[in-house]
Amino acid sequence: MVGLVRAFTEVVAAEDPAAAEYVHRGSTSQDVFDTGAMLVARTALRLIRADLDTAAHALARLAAEHRDTAMAGRTLALHAVPTTFGLKAAGWRELLLEAGHRIGTVADTGLPVSLGGAAGTLAGYLEYAGPVEPGAYLDDLVAAFATETGLARPALPWHTLRTPIADLASALSFTAGALGKIAVDVQSLARTEVGEVEEPTAPGRGSSSAMPHKRNPVLATLLRSAALQVPPLATGLTQCLLSEDERSAGGWHAEWQLLRECLRLTGGAAHTAVELTEGLRIRPARMTENLELTGSRIVSERIAAVLAPRLGKAAARHLLDTATAEAERTGQPLAKVLTDLPEVALDPTELATLCDPSHYTGAAGPLVDRALRPRA
Amino acid sequence: MVGLVRAFTEVVAAEDPAAAEYVHRGSTSQDVFDTGAMLVARTALRLIRADLDTAAHALARLAAEHRDTAMAGRTLALHAVPTTFGLKAAGWRELLLEAGHRIGTVADTGLPVSLGGAAGTLAGYLEYAGPVEPGAYLDDLVAAFATETGLARPALPWHTLRTPIADLASALSFTAGALGKIAVDVQSLARTEVGEVEEPTAPGRGSSSAMPHKRNPVLATLLRSAALQVPPLATGLTQCLLSEDERSAGGWHAEWQLLRECLRLTGGAAHTAVELTEGLRIRPARMTENLELTGSRIVSERIAAVLAPRLGKAAARHLLDTATAEAERTGQPLAKVLTDLPEVALDPTELATLCDPSHYTGAAGPLVDRALRPRA
Amino acid sequence: MVGLVRAFTEVVAAEDPAAAEYVHRGSTSQDVFDTGAMLVARTALRLIRADLDTAAHALARLAAEHRDTAMAGRTLALHAVPTTFGLKAAGWRELLLEAGHRIGTVADTGLPVSLGGAAGTLAGYLEYAGPVEPGAYLDDLVAAFATETGLARPALPWHTLRTPIADLASALSFTAGALGKIAVDVQSLARTEVGEVEEPTAPGRGSSSAMPHKRNPVLATLLRSAALQVPPLATGLTQCLLSEDERSAGGWHAEWQLLRECLRLTGGAAHTAVELTEGLRIRPARMTENLELTGSRIVSERIAAVLAPRLGKAAARHLLDTATAEAERTGQPLAKVLTDLPEVALDPTELATLCDPSHYTGAAGPLVDRALRPRA
Amino acid sequence: MVGLVRAFTEVVAAEDPAAAEYVHRGSTSQDVFDTGAMLVARTALRLIRADLDTAAHALARLAAEHRDTAMAGRTLALHAVPTTFGLKAAGWRELLLEAGHRIGTVADTGLPVSLGGAAGTLAGYLEYAGPVEPGAYLDDLVAAFATETGLARPALPWHTLRTPIADLASALSFTAGALGKIAVDVQSLARTEVGEVEEPTAPGRGSSSAMPHKRNPVLATLLRSAALQVPPLATGLTQCLLSEDERSAGGWHAEWQLLRECLRLTGGAAHTAVELTEGLRIRPARMTENLELTGSRIVSERIAAVLAPRLGKAAARHLLDTATAEAERTGQPLAKVLTDLPEVALDPTELATLCDPSHYTGAAGPLVDRALRPRA
Repeated sequence: MVGLVRAFTEVVAAEDPAAAEYVHRGSTSQDVFDTGAMLVARTALRLIRADLDTAAHALARLAAEHRDTAMAGRTLALHAVPTTFGLKAAGWRELLLEAGHRIGTVADTGLPVSLGGAAGTLAGYLEYAGPVEPGAYLDDLVAAFATETGLARPALPWHTLRTPIADLASALSFTAGALGKIAVDVQSLARTEVGEVEEPTAPGRGSSSAMPHKRNPVLATLLRSAALQVPPLATGLTQCLLSEDERSAGGWHAEWQLLRECLRLTGGAAHTAVELTEGLRIRPARMTENLELTGSRIVSERIAAVLAPRLGKAAARHLLDTATAEAERTGQPLAKVLTDLPEVALDPTELATLCDPSHYTGAAGPLVDRALRPRA
Repeated sequence: MVGLVRAFTEVVAAEDPAAAEYVHRGSTSQDVFDTGAMLVARTALRLIRADLDTAAHALARLAAEHRDTAMAGRTLALHAVPTTFGLKAAGWRELLLEAGHRIGTVADTGLPVSLGGAAGTLAGYLEYAGPVEPGAYLDDLVAAFATETGLARPALPWHTLRTPIADLASALSFTAGALGKIAVDVQSLARTEVGEVEEPTAPGRGSSSAMPHKRNPVLATLLRSAALQVPPLATGLTQCLLSEDERSAGGWHAEWQLLRECLRLTGGAAHTAVELTEGLRIRPARMTENLELTGSRIVSERIAAVLAPRLGKAAARHLLDTATAEAERTGQPLAKVLTDLPEVALDPTELATLCDPSHYTGAAGPLVDRALRPRA
Repeated sequence: MVGLVRAFTEVVAAEDPAAAEYVHRGSTSQDVFDTGAMLVARTALRLIRADLDTAAHALARLAAEHRDTAMAGRTLALHAVPTTFGLKAAGWRELLLEAGHRIGTVADTGLPVSLGGAAGTLAGYLEYAGPVEPGAYLDDLVAAFATETGLARPALPWHTLRTPIADLASALSFTAGALGKIAVDVQSLARTEVGEVEEPTAPGRGSSSAMPHKRNPVLATLLRSAALQVPPLATGLTQCLLSEDERSAGGWHAEWQLLRECLRLTGGAAHTAVELTEGLRIRPARMTENLELTGSRIVSERIAAVLAPRLGKAAARHLLDTATAEAERTGQPLAKVLTDLPEVALDPTELATLCDPSHYTGAAGPLVDRALRPRA
Repeated sequence: MVGLVRAFTEVVAAEDPAAAEYVHRGSTSQDVFDTGAMLVARTALRLIRADLDTAAHALARLAAEHRDTAMAGRTLALHAVPTTFGLKAAGWRELLLEAGHRIGTVADTGLPVSLGGAAGTLAGYLEYAGPVEPGAYLDDLVAAFATETGLARPALPWHTLRTPIADLASALSFTAGALGKIAVDVQSLARTEVGEVEEPTAPGRGSSSAMPHKRNPVLATLLRSAALQVPPLATGLTQCLLSEDERSAGGWHAEWQLLRECLRLTGGAAHTAVELTEGLRIRPARMTENLELTGSRIVSERIAAVLAPRLGKAAARHLLDTATAEAERTGQPLAKVLTDLPEVALDPTELATLCDPSHYTGAAGPLVDRALRPRA
């Protein structure tokens, strides 16, 4: 900063020597750095917000299109009960809306100018100002700076009250994590054995240097990579809240690179997410095929529910425990095993309908409708 | 959960066998765990919020009382320019208000019921319900559960949309960090050589097992200890956003202990902060003594500002660079060195006034006034 | 500690009043805590080491048994080229050997007694000792304490030289991560669509409260859950290296819970790993089936290598790029597409052999042999 | 990598078209990246190790020079009992030796070549090689690559066995933390009120843009800043142990920047530490002054020990509790208060000697001697 002030003073003096007397008068290095960081963050947050909006829009389209596209719901790595791709896309979108909201709140109200002077009292400013009413002068000065930069007015000088940095860390970490959730789901669905989604291709992208046949899911990879990095980086920023005295010897300095990397990684991930969500290819045929993999055991919960009123909930559950184990052991479809059990007493057509996974998606459709409704 | 459901069913059945059929009908383990976690979190957040309010109130009192108590402002471990203890206390309070606001937002709107069933479609509920309009049933069901528990209604089932956990992590991490800032300041001021504040004593507390004369600042120690632990724990929680599929195989399970510890540590720290802020003893005499330590070099910025209009800013700065170095080298007060310099041309009385650190606290007073004003 | 010293003194005094004079004479609270923590850690590390050994033994057996069991190698979520399950198991074992080595190094040499007295000078001990040669007394005292406890002798009192804690953090974090690698692989292979491994079952374990057919891979889930928690907890411990002065006001206190949780989580995961690795069921038939999924595109690298000497490396790669794209587009096996290309000029039998994934496992076998060889 | 392979092939082909056929034959992108990372890490570790050695040497000199320079030992921010600056410097040095040892171990044996091919089986190499004995070929190939690069031979291809990265993370994190401990101690001793050490000055360095009199302790600030950043960054690296399958979709990619920053920050801090330790100015006169601050209460432990044989340990402690409280309340020196107590029964000369803090440094001298002894 000492060098910057000297250089800047020379530049100003060349135009107007009297004006040069006003350069860096009253403020301290940290005022300049912190205000600069807020301006950089604002620009980055705007880009991130716009990308989150665009990606959310693409996901809304996917959710609507696939409102009723049945697929296997997977829990703890295994088929659980059916769900729909629309519900999954609506969930991803929800996370991006929440990320956008958090980014927006910080961008709109959480990025203040820094103006405290050497130890946060603005004493230098007042000394240069000569005889003024300190309170009024302070109000005018901070207001003018806020207006000039378009940043917020802080309640107090914040050299060691690092709320703006912690808020940035939190919003960026959440956003990277939200994008990371989409990434791990895309990777789960893109696996060779699953094949339910495919990343958009572009010439040369995702090709392997060794394997001619591979088209690597590089967009999701970038998102997940960012999501693995930003939360630990953000922790470093949050810990800088422990800035001692009027300015910290190290706490503040540790923020610089961490913040820059959080902005860059989250910004890159948000931008990549636009391409991923806009171009993601859905394979409903593979979803249907995969739904059939367990021979209807995926609807065992449903059959238990159907039988419960007649057999009692515990007995129905026990019957299904036994029947699904038998189906798995023998490789027979669950419907076949159930047909042979007299307690079941359902006619084959009814049983076939009950065992069709695509008929057991619960409230997935209405959930998508509600999630896509405009909200205040 | 399997065991809990069995036991709970037996308890209900003992009273009403028909009612037992309704136990755990449609929901999944995670619904029960997550809703339980939200109820626990709500209780903990209420306690934390109340303690933050109480501590903020105590700090408001300290800030008002010491609005004009001058003390050394310290930056990068060294005396910089004077400040006031009132401004420091107002800054601490500001952080606690911000923490309380973040905790309150999560408590009021960020703690939803969890109700998704096996894979987030509520299919089991609908199957048991028989012929109903799924959307309306869904709305009623979730609304009833939200009313019963007093928790919020989620936009979607959130088995792998972990916003509520990430929000808790963020608010708790910020709060622990805010309390940690107070702690490192108290420790800085309580050092034997500084002696400007002292922790409240209580029988036996803070005594050393080895040294009869010690009264350790244990309250600040507890705060700082929590502040060193919660941010890394919270990172673990944020990373659980990367929960794959409809329910994660490990991501969810990693949250349990981390969340509990974040709540406990932050809750303990907030409670300790009440005692610390309500009982903190301020030593204005030591503050005044310490202000004198540098022989007025602490006001060098001021003298530079006073001389700038006459000598030019750069020349004034250069003069003070030289004079403060001379004062430090010889051990003379800065005022004495300046008196001997013809360019200074200030009469001794004026110079004495300018060099009195307690007269150079800038806008500290008005800043305190503004920070303590009631806000919307 | 003050309370403990009082109680312990009473107990000793009841037996021998003169001996009670020697209780807590010269040492400080942190000496007692730190030595206790080392003793607890030693016990935990022994258990962890034994479990790692047992699991490594089980993996050696799996690696040997499946030395030549071909399966799809997967990179960035997609089939890449074939590998063997033996090589995968040998890799897991390697990580556990490395974890065991790191745990063993800490257990054997990294757990010292703590004996420094109030500020690390042992002055209290010397004062009580009366006229002694300080160096010799110091040597004898520390040696006796080390012998009594079976712990190591530190180079210096380590109240704020926290190497032992940082080393524990590092070894435990690595171990949890190594176990987590096994877990994510097991989960990847256990997915319903993949089905290449299955966790061992036990009555009631892994059953779902909602879905009769599910047997959740709970062992891998526990391992992964621990692996998501321990590294952030361990960071907290590493950061405690920044312990100021002769004893820190918070840094030390932050270690207590973090260390306990690192030991517990890693210990639990190591123990669970024994059961997982000893009981893991391998499904070679599914591995073979999955290898066929891409219609031999999984060996595209091989065909490119075979054709390179004749066509040149670049042309061969280009030919395979085109052929695999064609195979994927049309759903034809790669061998069929290649047969139709005149440049390929391989007879169908030769081509069939080249396209058999189980013949393209490279040095997997010899790699397993080497990994399983006894090492110094 | 695809682009790099193309460009490199062209360069080679321009010299020798036949040789160009051998470019990137058998290996995969990750082999190139990981081997490159190991080479970069080796260079960085060498620099770090040399700087740690140099700084340890400087600290050995300080420890020897100040073997008997008494100063206040400080615990939980307060004066505890005396220590010596020599013992403090010896402790700092011990940490740097331990850091150097950890860095050296990784540099010497922990940086392997990466050579696995598409999925870790080296199948491409073998295919290109034609009819060879795979095990012998593998051994020769890896040995040749290790010799060429000077890196270690891995037990197995390590695309998803990330021990080398985790080991780097651990050694760098420890080193940054060790340097950070020195930094927080220097800052504690450099405070205006303490003034026991001063950073070396250099023209312009550490000057403030606002305050003429300030010379900020920027070297310690840089060290502490690095120490606050590296442990969270390193956590990110450790977590990459959870790399699924034969190559991870994101886990690997997350390592790149994190590793680079860990190397840069730790390298920068180690280099700065040389300047700090070589130039650190010690102020024995201020140490003596500060030792007197508590009017001998700093030796209360000693007096308790002296009186214990006569009064019993508990009674002696109680007497000192009372006397130090009285001394603190009245501002009298402890010796004066004790003189007035008949139970003390020590003649004034003896008491004066006992109360002289510089005579109560325990085994500090012998501890320094032992720490500075050459070790195997």
